[in-house]
Amino acid sequence: MSSGRLEAFSDGVLAVIITIMVLEIKAPEGGDLEALRPLIPELLSYLLSFSLIAVYWNNHHHLLRATQTISSEVMWANMHLLFWLSLVPVATNWIGNHPHQPWPAATLGIISMMAGVAYFVLSRLIIAANRGTGIEEALGGDTKGVASLVFYGAGVGLAFLHPYLAYGCYTAVFVMWFIPDRRLSR
Amino acid sequence: MSSGRLEAFSDGVLAVIITIMVLEIKAPEGGDLEALRPLIPELLSYLLSFSLIAVYWNNHHHLLRATQTISSEVMWANMHLLFWLSLVPVATNWIGNHPHQPWPAATLGIISMMAGVAYFVLSRLIIAANRGTGIEEALGGDTKGVASLVFYGAGVGLAFLHPYLAYGCYTAVFVMWFIPDRRLSR
Amino acid sequence: MSSGRLEAFSDGVLAVIITIMVLEIKAPEGGDLEALRPLIPELLSYLLSFSLIAVYWNNHHHLLRATQTISSEVMWANMHLLFWLSLVPVATNWIGNHPHQPWPAATLGIISMMAGVAYFVLSRLIIAANRGTGIEEALGGDTKGVASLVFYGAGVGLAFLHPYLAYGCYTAVFVMWFIPDRRLSR
Amino acid sequence: MSSGRLEAFSDGVLAVIITIMVLEIKAPEGGDLEALRPLIPELLSYLLSFSLIAVYWNNHHHLLRATQTISSEVMWANMHLLFWLSLVPVATNWIGNHPHQPWPAATLGIISMMAGVAYFVLSRLIIAANRGTGIEEALGGDTKGVASLVFYGAGVGLAFLHPYLAYGCYTAVFVMWFIPDRRLSR
Repeated sequence: MSSGRLEAFSDGVLAVIITIMVLEIKAPEGGDLEALRPLIPELLSYLLSFSLIAVYWNNHHHLLRATQTISSEVMWANMHLLFWLSLVPVATNWIGNHPHQPWPAATLGIISMMAGVAYFVLSRLIIAANRGTGIEEALGGDTKGVASLVFYGAGVGLAFLHPYLAYGCYTAVFVMWFIPDRRLSR
Repeated sequence: MSSGRLEAFSDGVLAVIITIMVLEIKAPEGGDLEALRPLIPELLSYLLSFSLIAVYWNNHHHLLRATQTISSEVMWANMHLLFWLSLVPVATNWIGNHPHQPWPAATLGIISMMAGVAYFVLSRLIIAANRGTGIEEALGGDTKGVASLVFYGAGVGLAFLHPYLAYGCYTAVFVMWFIPDRRLSR
Repeated sequence: MSSGRLEAFSDGVLAVIITIMVLEIKAPEGGDLEALRPLIPELLSYLLSFSLIAVYWNNHHHLLRATQTISSEVMWANMHLLFWLSLVPVATNWIGNHPHQPWPAATLGIISMMAGVAYFVLSRLIIAANRGTGIEEALGGDTKGVASLVFYGAGVGLAFLHPYLAYGCYTAVFVMWFIPDRRLSR
Repeated sequence: MSSGRLEAFSDGVLAVIITIMVLEIKAPEGGDLEALRPLIPELLSYLLSFSLIAVYWNNHHHLLRATQTISSEVMWANMHLLFWLSLVPVATNWIGNHPHQPWPAATLGIISMMAGVAYFVLSRLIIAANRGTGIEEALGGDTKGVASLVFYGAGVGLAFLHPYLAYGCYTAVFVMWFIPDRRLSR
């Protein structure tokens, strides 16, 4: 069973997730620059969640590129990952409306952690389905995946000190994936 | 006529269906944990419907993978299936707002049954268009498809005793497809 | 220039169009069967527009299947077609709210006519870009396309006698494409 | 690393962007022709933004068609482009509600400029990843890309004289890409 259609479906779901978040950004009430101000937290939470989904899409791309065959278990594990990612817009919208409260910030972290766990399960099942193809070497270690979970978990806890600390943790995950990717490609 | 574009279009429609249901989950009004409570029925009905669409996507994937050629009749039968599945978000949203009422629960069952019938018609037409390719052996019997229809029908009836019985029936369909799939893949 | 990506993009746009119409069907206010009644015109207008988009997708599929190469002109003509089809949800929603008024019914007909003209232009440009490949024979005559335009035009006019006459005309177009397709495939 | 999935994901995101703008066009309140009047600015701003996204899709198609291999940097640069384009619906909606105010018109220009810069970065990184494949000759010069940025910038400034001047500038960009494309294809 090749992975073509699983990739196409995942691309579709991720494309919708990443764009429907924009639907929650309501156009400003007034027509002047001042009317843009209430949008700032919504735009920033959108930027944060866009980055989060972008990291997942990139990783998913790399993971599936190393995959030669998929199993039914892989299909369900992929659905499980998409389920958690599909909840990101709800948390994003909540943060946009209540950027200074701990629970919205913590909720995004919890959803991100669940997605991270789902991604880990997916990668294990893909490796199991592709044994002997050198996939483990191609994928390399899980260090960054584990570190992401730690950062998300720290963000959930720190959200109750100050939600901005949580946003910092989530941004750090993005930076962690963004920077080395650029280095590796040289 | 190959099935590539029919799969791509179905993936697109199913990807949108599975994600737009999230758009109906409005971000909590307040910023504290208490504000999440009214979302619980919406989240549970989303989870139920996500599982329902996931089962259809998986089955559709297996069905089309065994297909070498499609006919115009197959294209219409596929559209017919997508039509019924596209109504799932409406019923999901209705259940989320009225989880303790019989009619929303029954409506999801009726839509699921119609989708099940549409899927049955689609698979018959695909088999008819691919005679002599061993597709009937590849697809195996219809036992689980028939059982799904029975469970959905039972859910529609039991919804009027208590809607939770209907939700149990629909969950049983998911479990029925999820468990054996995992066993088969070993 | 092959047509693969043009098909993929068109599939994406049509998949979103066909499913976002469902977003306009608001879940019933109450939890009983009576609450479904106000949804009936919305569901019927959705069914009508779903059929309309389905006919276009099917025809687009057949047209592109016969296409070996595309030009920049074809890309713009395809965008032009998608533009008109993207307005179908607005007219559908309008009809759902005002099913007994002439203008919403006429508007759907006008949009359908414009889409029909855009489709005609697209097919001419595709034929021009694929001369010598037997595409004209593969596509056959335009009789049904011209008949569709006549029916849509009749619907626009008859809407002002009674909007139901317009809905009858639009349904006739669907039947015209649906029936012979089934006959041909035998 | 081939570009297939990057194209598929971009198609998905652009397809959703181009169609969700329609969701913001609310069906008219009344059922008569008069009720359509308030929709006119919304429809015109939709037409403008549809054209803008159409130009980007066409250019993206041409750019990726000349691409043989992509890098991680290209993947991030593509995400960056999609991010700015995903903000177009917000500005479009704002213009639709306040067509005679300078800031909405200027905002669309600023977003378009940022997307133009992102596109420029993407094309540079793609060229860097495909050196020696004749990609620079295939893509030709950047004259029209630079001219687009100038027009968008002029639109931002002129919006404060009169927003219609800004709309004229943005329309000019569309015409600039539309006309020569047609000439080249002959």
